[in-house]
Amino acid sequence: MAWEGVIKTYFDYLPVSEKTPIITLKEGNTPLVPADRLARHINKGLKIFLKYEGLNPTGSFKDRGMTMAISKAIEEGSCAVMCASTGNTSASAAAYSARSGLKCFVLIPHKSIALGKLSQALIHGADVLAVQGNFDDTLKVVRYITSNYPVTLVNSINPNRIEGQKTGAFEIVDVLGKAPDYHAIPVGNAGNITAYWKGYREYHEAGKISSLPRMIGFQAAGSAPIVLGKVVEDPKTIATAIKIGNPASWESAEAAARDSGGMIQMVTDEEIIEAYKILAQTEGVFVEPASAASVAGVIKYAKESYFDDSKGKTVVCVLTGHGLKDPDRAIQTVGNPEVIENDPMKVVERLGLKK
Amino acid sequence: MAWEGVIKTYFDYLPVSEKTPIITLKEGNTPLVPADRLARHINKGLKIFLKYEGLNPTGSFKDRGMTMAISKAIEEGSCAVMCASTGNTSASAAAYSARSGLKCFVLIPHKSIALGKLSQALIHGADVLAVQGNFDDTLKVVRYITSNYPVTLVNSINPNRIEGQKTGAFEIVDVLGKAPDYHAIPVGNAGNITAYWKGYREYHEAGKISSLPRMIGFQAAGSAPIVLGKVVEDPKTIATAIKIGNPASWESAEAAARDSGGMIQMVTDEEIIEAYKILAQTEGVFVEPASAASVAGVIKYAKESYFDDSKGKTVVCVLTGHGLKDPDRAIQTVGNPEVIENDPMKVVERLGLKK
Repeated sequence: MAWEGVIKTYFDYLPVSEKTPIITLKEGNTPLVPADRLARHINKGLKIFLKYEGLNPTGSFKDRGMTMAISKAIEEGSCAVMCASTGNTSASAAAYSARSGLKCFVLIPHKSIALGKLSQALIHGADVLAVQGNFDDTLKVVRYITSNYPVTLVNSINPNRIEGQKTGAFEIVDVLGKAPDYHAIPVGNAGNITAYWKGYREYHEAGKISSLPRMIGFQAAGSAPIVLGKVVEDPKTIATAIKIGNPASWESAEAAARDSGGMIQMVTDEEIIEAYKILAQTEGVFVEPASAASVAGVIKYAKESYFDDSKGKTVVCVLTGHGLKDPDRAIQTVGNPEVIENDPMKVVERLGLKK
Repeated sequence: MAWEGVIKTYFDYLPVSEKTPIITLKEGNTPLVPADRLARHINKGLKIFLKYEGLNPTGSFKDRGMTMAISKAIEEGSCAVMCASTGNTSASAAAYSARSGLKCFVLIPHKSIALGKLSQALIHGADVLAVQGNFDDTLKVVRYITSNYPVTLVNSINPNRIEGQKTGAFEIVDVLGKAPDYHAIPVGNAGNITAYWKGYREYHEAGKISSLPRMIGFQAAGSAPIVLGKVVEDPKTIATAIKIGNPASWESAEAAARDSGGMIQMVTDEEIIEAYKILAQTEGVFVEPASAASVAGVIKYAKESYFDDSKGKTVVCVLTGHGLKDPDRAIQTVGNPEVIENDPMKVVERLGLKK
C-alpha cells in the first residue's frame, strides 16, 4: 500500500474533515532504525531504536506539523503564512507553501542558522528576512505581525502543528506494536515533546497501547531554560535547532516529563558532538547536531545509573533532522580530506594496502 | 507493516540467501509524489510523478545498491571496500560500511564534489582521499587497486549495486499498480537507467506488469558522452553527480533506451537549473541539480512535441538526490537573504503588509 502522508493515514485522529484540502509531500513513515551497536556501547541491555525524522521530505520532523498547518491555513482562506525559525520550520513552511501556492514569509535570526536550512527557505521561494537578533527576538516579531496583520502564524504555537507532529508517536507504536518504555527527544522550543506525549496519550485513550513511555527530554546546556527554570537571554550551543532561550511550549513540556514519570535534563555541546559522531560512525546515521541531544542524553544518564533497572527495556530516540542540514559542522568536526596525486601506487602507499 | 528495507522486501528478486547478513538502514520505500502543478506547466495532459529518491537514508538512490553491495561484501568475507565517487556513492558506502564495521576507502575527484556529500563521507569515518583528477581518472585508480588488492569495489560496476537499484522500479509499479508509460531519469555513470530497466523487465517476466515503460535518459550537455557517441575527456556541468565523461554502464544504458523505445538525450545547465527551480517553487520538492535533469528533459522534449500523442499517459521522473546535498548551489541560484533590524514595523514595511 502506498503511503499517503500523515493526514490521510491518521485522519481520524486529526482536526480535519473531508473539506480540508490536503497539501502533502508524503511526509512521515520514517524508519525506526534498530541501534544495536549503540546499545552495546551503552551496555545496559537496552533495546534502542532511532526514529530517523531526517528522512521527511524537507529533512526534519517539522513536515508532520506543516502538512497540517498549511492545509488548515488554506481551508481557512489564508493567503500568506509566516514563521520565525532556527531553520527547520522555515524549510518546511517554504516547501509546503510552494506546493500549495501560498505566500510564505520567513524570519530567521541573522547568522544563526545552518547552511542547508537557509538554502531550503530560499530555493522554495519564500520571502526570507534575516533579523538582527536571536530566535526569541525573531519569534516576538512574528507573533506581533501575525496578531495584527492577515498572515497565518505557522510556528508550533499554531495548534495544528502539534496535531501533525503527534503522528510520530502513532508511527512508533504502529511499528513496535506497543509504546516504548522510554522516549528520548531533544528539547528546543518544546513543541515536539508536547506533540509526542499528546500522541501517546491519544493512542492510550483509544486502546491502542496499554502503557505510556517515560518522556525524557534533553536541552543543550548553554540553552537550557526549562532545566534551569528561567529564561536564557543569550542562549549558546552548536545545536542551532534547539538554541532557544524562552520555549513557546515550556509548560506543556514540563507537564509531559512530569506526568509520564520522565525528566527534562541537559547535555553539553561536547556530549552532543560525541553522540553525533557515534551515530554516524557506528550506526551509519547522520543527523544534525541538535538531533544527537536525545542520544547524548541516553548515553549520559546511562552512566549516571538512570537505566540500571531497565535491562530489556525499549528506548526510542527521536532524531529530529538530517545531518545534511548542517554540513559545515561535520567537516569542522572531522577535518577536510587529504589531497593526493592521480597515481594508483601513491594511493596504495598512503592507505597502507598489502596484496 | 514496518518497512524492512529493500533486501527483505524484494528478497525473492535479489541474489541473496538466508545466509546473507543484511546490513540495512531501511532504505527504499521513497515517496512517489504527484506533480500536478508541473504537469499543468508542461501542458500536455501528462500525469507526472516524482520518485523522490532523496529521501533514502543518505539522501540519494545509491542506498538501494549499497545495502546489497555491503551485505554481499560481508557475506563474501571482505574486510574493506572502496569506491570512486562524485559524492553520492561515497556517502552511501561510508554510511553502510560504518553500520557494518567494514573499513571504507573513498576516492573523490578533488574540488569536484558538493559540500553535503563531502561532509557525509567524512563524518561516517571513511578514509577519504581527494585525487587530483576528474571522476573518470579516480575510477581508474579504484579499478586498478580493487583488481590488485584485497579490497571490494562498490562502484556500480559491482553487479550487486545494480541488483539493489532495480528495486526502485519495483516500488514504482507496486504503487501505481502498473508500469508508467515513460520513465525519465538522469544519466551519469549510467548504472541507474540500467538498473531500472532491469527491474521493469523482471517484473514483466514475473507477470507483475503487462507493459514496459519507454526509458528516457538525460545527460548534461557538457557531459554527454552517450549522446555524442564519444568519451568526453573534460566533462563540465553544474550537475556534479552526473559529471562523468566515460560511463561505466554505457552499453547497457544504450540498450535500455533502444529496447524500450526510449532515448538518451541531453539538457543544458540552464535547462537543469530552470527545472530545479520549478521543482522547488511549484512542487515543494528540493533536489540536487543532477536530479533535475530528468524533469528538464521532460520539459524540453514536451516543447519539441515528443509527448504530443501522450495525453493521459504516466511519466515517472526519478529525482536521484536531495537538494541538501548541494546547499551552495541553491544559495548561488537565488541569493542570500536581506538583513533587517529587529523591529516589527520595519519588517511590516519591507514586506508591504496591510491590515
